[in-house]
Formats: sequence, structure tokens, C-alpha cells
Amino acid sequence: MLPTIKWENNKVIMIDQRKLPFKEIYLELNSYHEVAEAISNMTIRGAPAIGIAAAFGIALGVLKLNDGENYIEKFYDICEVFKKTRPTAKNLFWAIDRIKRVFESNKNLPLKVIKEKIIEEALLIEKEDIEINKKISENGERLIKKEEKILTHCNAGELATGGFGTAIGVIKSAFYNGKKIKVYVDETRPFLQGARLTCWELKKAGIPHVLITDNMAGWLMKKGKITCVIVGADRIASNGDTANKIGTYSLAILAKEHGIPFYVAAPLSTIDFSIGTGEEIPIEERNKKEVLEINSISIAPEGTEAENPAFDVTPSSFITAIITEKGVVRKPYLKSLKKLKEVS
Amino acid sequence: MLPTIKWENNKVIMIDQRKLPFKEIYLELNSYHEVAEAISNMTIRGAPAIGIAAAFGIALGVLKLNDGENYIEKFYDICEVFKKTRPTAKNLFWAIDRIKRVFESNKNLPLKVIKEKIIEEALLIEKEDIEINKKISENGERLIKKEEKILTHCNAGELATGGFGTAIGVIKSAFYNGKKIKVYVDETRPFLQGARLTCWELKKAGIPHVLITDNMAGWLMKKGKITCVIVGADRIASNGDTANKIGTYSLAILAKEHGIPFYVAAPLSTIDFSIGTGEEIPIEERNKKEVLEINSISIAPEGTEAENPAFDVTPSSFITAIITEKGVVRKPYLKSLKKLKEVS
Repeated sequence: MLPTIKWENNKVIMIDQRKLPFKEIYLELNSYHEVAEAISNMTIRGAPAIGIAAAFGIALGVLKLNDGENYIEKFYDICEVFKKTRPTAKNLFWAIDRIKRVFESNKNLPLKVIKEKIIEEALLIEKEDIEINKKISENGERLIKKEEKILTHCNAGELATGGFGTAIGVIKSAFYNGKKIKVYVDETRPFLQGARLTCWELKKAGIPHVLITDNMAGWLMKKGKITCVIVGADRIASNGDTANKIGTYSLAILAKEHGIPFYVAAPLSTIDFSIGTGEEIPIEERNKKEVLEINSISIAPEGTEAENPAFDVTPSSFITAIITEKGVVRKPYLKSLKKLKEVS
Repeated sequence: MLPTIKWENNKVIMIDQRKLPFKEIYLELNSYHEVAEAISNMTIRGAPAIGIAAAFGIALGVLKLNDGENYIEKFYDICEVFKKTRPTAKNLFWAIDRIKRVFESNKNLPLKVIKEKIIEEALLIEKEDIEINKKISENGERLIKKEEKILTHCNAGELATGGFGTAIGVIKSAFYNGKKIKVYVDETRPFLQGARLTCWELKKAGIPHVLITDNMAGWLMKKGKITCVIVGADRIASNGDTANKIGTYSLAILAKEHGIPFYVAAPLSTIDFSIGTGEEIPIEERNKKEVLEINSISIAPEGTEAENPAFDVTPSSFITAIITEKGVVRKPYLKSLKKLKEVS
């Protein structure tokens, strides 16, 4: 399998996640506008993958800057375009900031060199993400018992990252280490990332899995069919409150009610140390058509109103542990996350 | 709007609920086999409506019995066919038993008279159901505050009953009494009864409503957007444990977590006094294709496994009140439901 996203011959190649699992189409994007649009319309999604896409996208934009124009201003304009693609995932802003720092510390060098440095940094973000995911997976794997029935929501796998995945990375590591794993995959309406993307990845990895509708999770927990929950994250506040795909919050409450561990797996780049609690995380409200239609076919009467918050925030009190590349941390997260930051 | 189901010229007419809201097709069923199949394949669904359909279906079957054959045995065979259509809804078995009692108390009369008595009883079940729903709605309406944002799951409206509805009946009564009502409609995967049927009914009734995916309910409760939950029921045990559409159990836990009342509205015919707790309620596992496809289009890779429990059981401890035609009862349900039975 090709990676989710790659930089090739000064172009950005990405698999169109809207078409999976039925069509494996790789898009070749030549302009930063196309990359920004691909993030907005969820051709590519998943917090770490969005970060890489933004870095690659800015690099594409920078490549086309010319000495004759006010390229400093134009650089910041390009960054602004990416900032506006999606509001929730911290990794997007984190990646933009990394590219900005490289630009700023090299801005007195010739534009040609700046371009090289920025492409280098974007490629480094991608490379590091894969390494980070492997570390997250190793760290998280130790939490998984010899036999485990794991519920996951949305897709926090290869497709959501530079490679290997976060939550699904943990699952894969446990499976590859010989643990007996069965995965329950929430279909994850409205975009069906679970049904379309997670099932596709688990099938390729040969990991036993069962698709369920989102409203079945509680009942399966009650029946003892689920022994832990692992999800990814889009933004984690200093106190551990975690924004992730809509439905995650409900799963955390259900896990608590049934005494089942609830794990979040994410890189440090997902942690937003600038905010105290989840209250400050902006929640994207997406087009209501995503709720009113499936496969472009209406599921409700014409004119029906809908809400479509793309994320929710799980209070840290519901989270058993947060799995990062620097280790697994537990409550109180304000302290344990801060400590992680200091060692990194 | 025509009723969900009616008896006309010795035929059964019903709206095809699989095609709603996009096509309003009324089917004319001429044999009991067709009616049984319509129950099994969810052309008609909703516990009270299933009860009426079974009564009408048996009446259709009885109409075709002849003096020359062993019609007593054949009558019981017909009843057995209906018993096997769906396992969970109590109203199905309750209606079959009512028809059986009429048959048994008249079996010495001429077959022609037996036929008349059975059709009469089936029509009475239908007529009573509408009256019962109106009483449920009046009783439940008193629980609704002047301004309420109500979450409902699946469809417990006109389409699920002989008319008016149970949970949606309560909502309609409150709205017609001038209360300020906004309904959040869970889409209710996999069959989408919320999106397809409840939105259709609420639109016709002019009641403001918003469609959400099933996984959004918890987050909307957290944000204060939902002030109470009302659902129907498929079977209620003596202790108040309630089987209803898959997802109901999770909603009850979420409502408790957020301090929101959780109401069940159902006729006494839904209560199964022969069983002590919800543990004894048989839960139908339906075809996994319902989960793997939407509108006959696959949503997951080929060969994906799925589970499809059609119902779950909400322990009575999570239920704020059960609304019946004889009044609203509260904990302890073993006592309060028994009392209801005695007065009826």
C-alpha cells in the first residue's frame, strides 16, 4: 500500500479517502490551493495526516514564489489559507507553525535555499510522524491484554497519519505481537470513516474485525463483547480533555459505565498546551448535507434540518490513559502531560 | 394521511415503510403469508403496528379456511407463522393470543361466524390501539415542560402504531397544547427509522425537528441542547426493563449522566408480565447486510463481518417514568406496573 500522502517530484500525491474502500484513487496535486481544498473536503483527514498535508501544501505554494514579488507576505497568505481549512485538529496549526519557524529563521537566505529548507522540514514532519506512530504503538501495546476485544471509532490508522497509525497502530502492534485481538469498528456516521477506512485497513492487515453501527457500542459493552476502547485525538488540552470524532464522548461515558478502559492514542503534536481545558477547543460544524445524505442519496425528507458537529470533547476524567510517543500518561493529566512536554 | 395499516374489503392495506419518505406506496396484501413476510422484512414495523398486522394477517388466513378441512389445526399453523416473524415485540404475541382466545371461545360455532368474530377482534385491536395512544399521549404530555428539546430514537409514531403514536404521540400532544417543542431525531442506523419515518411524520405535523446521527446525542446533551428523551418500547419486563430499538440503552446511560429525564411511552400490551427481567427478552439479530449496506450500496469492504442486534434492553433503573394509557408509573416498577395491570 502506498502511503496516505507523499511528496514526489515537487507534487503532492494523496489517496482520495472519500472514495475508499471501493476505489483506490491517487490524486496528484500541483498547487497549494488544491491541497487546502483536499483538507477542507476531507479527501485527506485525520489530525496527523492533515498536519503533513498542510506542510506539503505550504511547500508547494512556496515553490512557486518568485524573487520579484513580495514573497514574505505571500508566504504568510499561504499559511493563512491552510489555517482556515479545518479548525479542530491541533496538528494542522502545529505543522504550519513548524514551517513558519523554518521560514523565519531562514528568511535572509536566498529564496531558493528557503524553498529547500521548507521542503526538507515538510519531509521531516512526515518522516517523524511515522517514527512517532511506531513509538506510540509500542507504548500502547503494553496496555493491551493477551486477549482483547477492542472498540475503535472513526479512523486513527495509516490513513489518518504519515503511516502505521495511532489507535490502529496500537492494535496492529498487539496483533503482530501474537495477542488475540478482535476489533469492533464503529461505522462512524456521517462520514463512515470506520466502515470505509478502518475496515479497509484492518482487512489489509489481516486483523479480525466486526463492523457495528455507532448506536450498538453500549449494548455490546453490556454484553461483555468489548473489553477496551482505543481512539485517536484531534486536539488535547493541557488538562487532558480530548477532542476527537463526534461520538467519542458518548463512548467514553459508556466505557466508564461498564468499567472498560478508555484509551486515547496521539502524538505530542496533538496536545495544545496553550489551552487549559477542552472548553477552549473550537468544534467544527460541517455541512448538514453530510448528515442528510449517504453516498449522495437523501435519507430524510426534503427540507429536513440537521446538525453536524464533526467533533466532541471528552473530559479527561473519562480517559484511562493517554498514549504518546514519549510514554503512557495517566491522571492527573495537567501534571503528567506537562512532564511529557518537559522531557521532549 | 392514510393510516399505517387498514382492513379493507377483506384485504390488508399497508404503507411500505421501507420506501418512505421518498415513495408513499400502499401495498394490498391478499394472503396471510404476505402479511407475515411484510412483518419480517419490516415493510411494517413498530411494536403496536406489528400486533395489528398479525391480527389482520391471521384474519386473512382464517377467511380462506374451509369447512371441509381441519381448520382448527390450520388456524394454529397460521398463528405459528406469525409467531416466527419477529421475536422481540411483545405486542405481536399479545395480539396473536387475543385472536386465539376469540377462536377458542367460539370454536363450536359455524366457521362463518368464527371468521366474523376474528375480523371483529382484529378491527377492535386496531381501534383500541388508536384510543390507547391518545391516552398515552395525554398522560405523557403532562410530563413535558412548557419548553422542551426532546430527543427521540427510531420511530414510535403513527407508523409504528394503529395511529397517533406513543412517544411521538406525547410529543404531538405537547406541541398541539402550545408547548414550545423542538425534537432531535436520531437517524437510527441501520434501518434509519428516525431519518426516514420520524422526520416524515414530524414534517407532516409541522413540529420543528433536527436530524442528527446516533453518535451525536451525548454531545448535544452535554451542550444543553437536549432536555429530555422519549422513546417507545418493544417489550417491557415485569420489573420495567425495556427492550427497544438498538441504541436506546446507550441513550438511557447518556441521559442519566447528564441528569436528563428518560421516558418510555408504551401501551400495556407491550408489558410482558410473564417475565421477571429484561434478561429474558429475546433480542432479534437481523441480517448483517442491513449494517453493511445503505440504500443497497455497500459501505464497507467486501467480506466485512458485522453484528446487527435489532434491539437492546434498558434496565429500569435508567428509566425516569413509563407512560401508559392507564397512567404514568415510576420506580419501583415491579410494584407500579403490577398495580396498573390490576386496574386494567
